Amino acid sequence: MQPTLRSFDLAHLAHVELLTPKPEESLRFFVDVMGLTESGRRGDSVYLRGWDDYERHTLKLTAARIAGMGHFAYRATSPEALQRRAAVIETSGRGRGWTDGDLGHGPAYAFATPDGHNVEIYYETEWYRPPPELAPALKNQAQRFPARGINARRLDHMNLLTSDVAELRHFLEDVLGLRTTEQIVLDSGQEVGGWVTSNNKTYDLAFTLDHYGAKGRFHHVTYALDSREEILRAADIFLEAGVPIETGPHKHAIQQTFFLYVYEPGGNRVEVANAGARLMLAPDWQPVVWTEAERKKGQAWGLKTVDTFHTHGTPPIEQYTGPRKK
Amino acid sequence: MQPTLRSFDLAHLAHVELLTPKPEESLRFFVDVMGLTESGRRGDSVYLRGWDDYERHTLKLTAARIAGMGHFAYRATSPEALQRRAAVIETSGRGRGWTDGDLGHGPAYAFATPDGHNVEIYYETEWYRPPPELAPALKNQAQRFPARGINARRLDHMNLLTSDVAELRHFLEDVLGLRTTEQIVLDSGQEVGGWVTSNNKTYDLAFTLDHYGAKGRFHHVTYALDSREEILRAADIFLEAGVPIETGPHKHAIQQTFFLYVYEPGGNRVEVANAGARLMLAPDWQPVVWTEAERKKGQAWGLKTVDTFHTHGTPPIEQYTGPRKK
Amino acid sequence: MQPTLRSFDLAHLAHVELLTPKPEESLRFFVDVMGLTESGRRGDSVYLRGWDDYERHTLKLTAARIAGMGHFAYRATSPEALQRRAAVIETSGRGRGWTDGDLGHGPAYAFATPDGHNVEIYYETEWYRPPPELAPALKNQAQRFPARGINARRLDHMNLLTSDVAELRHFLEDVLGLRTTEQIVLDSGQEVGGWVTSNNKTYDLAFTLDHYGAKGRFHHVTYALDSREEILRAADIFLEAGVPIETGPHKHAIQQTFFLYVYEPGGNRVEVANAGARLMLAPDWQPVVWTEAERKKGQAWGLKTVDTFHTHGTPPIEQYTGPRKK
Amino acid sequence: MQPTLRSFDLAHLAHVELLTPKPEESLRFFVDVMGLTESGRRGDSVYLRGWDDYERHTLKLTAARIAGMGHFAYRATSPEALQRRAAVIETSGRGRGWTDGDLGHGPAYAFATPDGHNVEIYYETEWYRPPPELAPALKNQAQRFPARGINARRLDHMNLLTSDVAELRHFLEDVLGLRTTEQIVLDSGQEVGGWVTSNNKTYDLAFTLDHYGAKGRFHHVTYALDSREEILRAADIFLEAGVPIETGPHKHAIQQTFFLYVYEPGGNRVEVANAGARLMLAPDWQPVVWTEAERKKGQAWGLKTVDTFHTHGTPPIEQYTGPRKK
Repeated sequence: MQPTLRSFDLAHLAHVELLTPKPEESLRFFVDVMGLTESGRRGDSVYLRGWDDYERHTLKLTAARIAGMGHFAYRATSPEALQRRAAVIETSGRGRGWTDGDLGHGPAYAFATPDGHNVEIYYETEWYRPPPELAPALKNQAQRFPARGINARRLDHMNLLTSDVAELRHFLEDVLGLRTTEQIVLDSGQEVGGWVTSNNKTYDLAFTLDHYGAKGRFHHVTYALDSREEILRAADIFLEAGVPIETGPHKHAIQQTFFLYVYEPGGNRVEVANAGARLMLAPDWQPVVWTEAERKKGQAWGLKTVDTFHTHGTPPIEQYTGPRKK
Repeated sequence: MQPTLRSFDLAHLAHVELLTPKPEESLRFFVDVMGLTESGRRGDSVYLRGWDDYERHTLKLTAARIAGMGHFAYRATSPEALQRRAAVIETSGRGRGWTDGDLGHGPAYAFATPDGHNVEIYYETEWYRPPPELAPALKNQAQRFPARGINARRLDHMNLLTSDVAELRHFLEDVLGLRTTEQIVLDSGQEVGGWVTSNNKTYDLAFTLDHYGAKGRFHHVTYALDSREEILRAADIFLEAGVPIETGPHKHAIQQTFFLYVYEPGGNRVEVANAGARLMLAPDWQPVVWTEAERKKGQAWGLKTVDTFHTHGTPPIEQYTGPRKK
Repeated sequence: MQPTLRSFDLAHLAHVELLTPKPEESLRFFVDVMGLTESGRRGDSVYLRGWDDYERHTLKLTAARIAGMGHFAYRATSPEALQRRAAVIETSGRGRGWTDGDLGHGPAYAFATPDGHNVEIYYETEWYRPPPELAPALKNQAQRFPARGINARRLDHMNLLTSDVAELRHFLEDVLGLRTTEQIVLDSGQEVGGWVTSNNKTYDLAFTLDHYGAKGRFHHVTYALDSREEILRAADIFLEAGVPIETGPHKHAIQQTFFLYVYEPGGNRVEVANAGARLMLAPDWQPVVWTEAERKKGQAWGLKTVDTFHTHGTPPIEQYTGPRKK
Repeated sequence: MQPTLRSFDLAHLAHVELLTPKPEESLRFFVDVMGLTESGRRGDSVYLRGWDDYERHTLKLTAARIAGMGHFAYRATSPEALQRRAAVIETSGRGRGWTDGDLGHGPAYAFATPDGHNVEIYYETEWYRPPPELAPALKNQAQRFPARGINARRLDHMNLLTSDVAELRHFLEDVLGLRTTEQIVLDSGQEVGGWVTSNNKTYDLAFTLDHYGAKGRFHHVTYALDSREEILRAADIFLEAGVPIETGPHKHAIQQTFFLYVYEPGGNRVEVANAGARLMLAPDWQPVVWTEAERKKGQAWGLKTVDTFHTHGTPPIEQYTGPRKK
C-alpha cells in the first residue's frame, strides 16, 4: 500500500452536531458532567465548547425526534484551500453547494460522504473571546479551566458507522485529502475499520462497519482530557452522576488511545480519551493494518470488546429510516 | 502582527547533535537514566533514540573537547519540499551546500542560522526497525517501552541561545517557513525570546537572548514524556542518580510546558517535558506576545526563574571562542 | 534516641478550627475552590468536610477579628482511652477540664500545649450521613465525589509554630503519646522542627520554630488529595481562582510530601498534599534526624524554601498579642 | 454487627512465601519486571523486597514442585504483644509452636488457619541496610528507587482462598485480633468474602470462598505502587514483557482498589494496586457488607469479574492434594 499523499488543505475536525431527543438532559450532561461551556443558542440548538477549543464552539447540540449526528465540519487551512477542496468535492459528485455558515463560522461548502453523513468545510471562523468571568489566568489559553465535572479539554475526534468502509476511506483520502494511519482488514480482504487524519494527530476521524448494513449512522464523538489519570477520575465522576458507562477505561490496541465510553442522555455515545503524546510527525507514515487474528486479542491489555460497541449507533437501529437528509 | 504563513515544507525537528567532553559518562546518562536506546556508532559519535521516535536516531552524541550543539536537523515533508526549501535557503545566502547525509538519513542541505548555529534539512530517512528483543507488543509502536530510567519517549524540541532574537526569528519564518507561536518582547521593543513550529506542536524550536552577546550557543534539548506524573517521577530518578537538577518540575507560563531541567555529564542542559495535549490546530494562530511585566511574575505557579537559566549555555561562556565552524 | 512508645490512645487528628476575619470569602474559598462541603452552622462558625472524611466535619471556620487557629482536636480510640489520656493530661498540669462537646461530637477534654495552642480530645462522634443528593455511588465511601474545584479528599495534618520545639515534642510524646517520626536538629543541638503521629500515617501533626519567638501561632492545615497529578491540577485551579500560591508544587525532603501552599482569604496558610502510599507500618520506627547541612540543600529536588515559610503564621506577627485564650 | 475490637498486637502483614515450580523464571519476573531487589538466599529460597519495604524482605520465593503459598507472616507491635498473641493462638488450638526464625527475622510463633494456611508471627526483625549502590538520596527512604520494570513499592496485602469464609473471619478477628472492614454476604446468609486489617490500611488480608471447596489454597499477593497512573504503566510493561494479564486495570467496588492481576511464571497470581489515600482512621469502623445484588453490578465502573478470578488459585485445583503441611 502506498503512503497517502497529504494535501494540507484541511486543518482539523472543527465541530460536530449531535441530535438529541432529550435536549435539556443532554445539555445538563455536557455542561455539568463533561464540563463544557455554553457559548451560544440559535433555534433548537445550543453551542458548546471545551476550555481549550479556540473556536466559538465544537459541539452543536440540537433538539430532534431521534438521536444521531446532524453534521460534522472541518476547518480549511486557508481561504484558497477551502476553494480548492470545494472544487474537488464538486467534481466527485458529492457536493451540495455553499451555505451562509452558522453561528461562529462563515460560508461553508456542504457535501455528503458516500454513506450519507452530512459534512461541511469552511475557513472563516470566530475565535472565542471569553467573558471576564471566564478569562484565563494565562493569556495563551482560550478560556479559564472550569474545575467542574470532568473538565473536557477539546474536541478530539469522531467515529462514523458506515455500510462500506473501503468506499468511505477512498472518499476521505481522495476527495478530502485525509491520510489513513491505521486500518482493520479481515482475512477476506474486507476493510472493517479505518482511522484518518488531517494533521499531526494520529486520527481525527474514524469509521467502522455498521453491522446492520445501515447507512450514515454515528458511532461516537470524543473529547480529549490531559492524562490517563483524568480519564480514571472521569470514570469516578460518571459513576457518581449516574451516567451509563459502556466500557473502559482501558487502552485500545489500535491508536493506543486510553478510552472511556458513555452514553449521553439523548442516547449518543460519547468518548473521553487521553490526548496524550502520540503524534504522527512522519510525512511518509505507512498505514498500520490490523488483521482478524490480531483483533481477536481484544484491547491492548486484553479487555474484550463489548457487544454493544459493534451494534449501538445513533439513530438506534430500531428507529433507523435511512441516511439523514440535511 | 500578521499571522505567519505556513509553508508545510518542513515536517518536524528530526535530530540534534550534542558535543560532550565526557562521552562515556554522557552515554551512560542518556542510556541508563534517560532510557534512550543506542542505535548506531560511527567515528566519535553514538546515535540514540527514544522509544517512540520513528527514525533511527534523534540524538547524535559526539565526543568533543568542549560541550555544545554540533548541528540540528529538520526533516522535509517530501523530496520536492526539500528542494524547494533548499533553494530558498540558497537565496538567503546562508546555504553551505549538500552533504551525502549521515547514518540513518540521506542527502542533506546544510546551512547556518544568522547566529551561526549549524542546521541541516533532509528527506530520505531510515525508519527504525527494532531487533527482536526490542520489538514492541503493539505493532503501531516504534520500539518496546524500555522500563529503564525515565523512559524518554521522543525528541520534543530544542532551544538556542542567540545574540539577536528578532533576526533569528525572521530567518526561521521567512527562510525556513516556520510559524511563530509565542514571543517575549521587552518594553523597549527588543525581542528576547521566540517559539516557532513546523507542525501542530506549539513549538519544536525556541530561542532566547544570549546575555553574554555570544553567537551560536546552545540552551537545551528536550525529550517528551507522557504525563506530568512521569516528569515528577523523572525528578525522583535524577535525584537518585546524582544528576544535577537546575530547576523544576514546574509549569512554564509560556507554552504551559511542564518542565524539568538537568545537566548531562558533558555540561549540556537537557529538559524533560510533558508532551501533553496542547496542540496548535488553528491555521491562523496569532503569536502570543509576553511583556516585560508579565515575565516578572515568574513561571505559571510563581516559581522565579533561576539565574543560571539566563547565563548557562554550551559552550560555557568561559570556553567560548566564537560560533562553531562545521 | 529511643523509639517512642506508642500509646494507641489517640486515633487521628480529627478537626481544626480556623479563625478568619473574612468569613464569607473564606467560606467561598473552602467550598468553591477547595471543594469542601458545608455540613452545619452554629453561632459564628460554619462546619466543613472533605468527601472522604467520615466524621461530620474536619474544619470549623469561625469568624474572628484576627486570623489564626482556634483549636484542634484528636479523636480517641475508645471511651476508655479518652479517660486514660485525659487523666495523663490532667497530671501534666496542662488540662482545662471537660466541655460538653460541639456540633458533631460529644464531651471533650480541653487542654493547652506548653506553647498555648488550644487542643481537645473526644471519643463520641457523629458519623456523616449524606443527604440524598450527596449520597455516593459506592457504599464504602462517605460522600459523593464533588467534581468541584480541587476536590480536597480529607484532613491530613496540621502544622504549629512554637517558641520551643523540644518542649512541645516532649509534651506530644509523653503526655499525648504521639510518636516522633522525623526531626530537624541544628548543629547547636537545638530542635527546630518535629513531625509526630498517632497512627500509621507518617505524621498528622508537625511543629516548627517560630522565628519571632511568639507563642501559640499557627503555620498551616493540610488537606490530602489522591495523587501528585491532582496537586498539579490544584495549582492550575488556584491560579485561575486568583488564590495566592506561596510555594510549590514540589516535594519535601522531610516526609517526602508532595506539597502546594496557598493562603486562604482570611490569611491562614493552607496546604494541599499527596496522601500517597507512604505509611509508617513499623512499630519500632526510629526518628529520622535532619541536620543543618542537610536542610541547606533545600527541598527534595532542590527548590529553596521561601522566606515567608519561616515568618508567616497566623495571627500575623504584627497583630500578635500573646497566646490565644480559649 | 458490632464493630470489631482492635487488639493493636499485630503491626502489619510482613512477608509472604511463594512456592514456584519455575524458580529461575519467577525470580527474573520479580526482579526485572516487578522491580524487586534480591536481599538474600538460603536453601531453595531467594528473599526479595520492594524499595519502600523497611524489613529485609517481604517476599520469600521458594522452589517447589507445585505452585502455592508456603506461609505468610505478621509482625507484632512489641515483644509483649507477640507473647500475648501467641498465648491466645495456643489457646485456640491452632498453634504449632515456636521456630527459631528465618533469614531477616527472629523467633516466630507458627500456627495454621482453620483452613490450613501456614502463618507465623514474630517481633524481632532486621531493618534493611542498603549496600552503597542502593543507598537512597533521601535518608527517610529504605532503598534507592530502582527505575526498573514497574518499581513495586511495598507489600500491600494478600488474598487467601478458603473453604469456609465465616470460620476464617472469626479466627482472624477473635484469635488474631484483626478487624473486618468489608464483606460479601449472599442472600442465603453465607459469607463468601472478607477483608481484614491489623492497622490503618483498610485491609492487609483478604479471603474469598474457594469454589472447589478446597482448603488452604492461595489467591494472590499484592504489591503497592504510588498512583493509578503507575498501575496503567505497569500494564504497558507487563504487556511488553509477555506477562499474562488476567484482568484490569480497573477499580474494585469493594475497597475501591485500583487493580491489575497477572500470573507470575510459576503460576501464582500477583496483583499490583494503588496504595492510594484510602485509610481507615476511624476506631469504630463498621464493616461494609456487600449483597449478592450489589456484586452482580461488577466492578466499580462496570467491568465483569472474569471467571478465572473465581476458580484459579494455587496450587491449581488439578494438582491439589489437601492443605499444605509445613
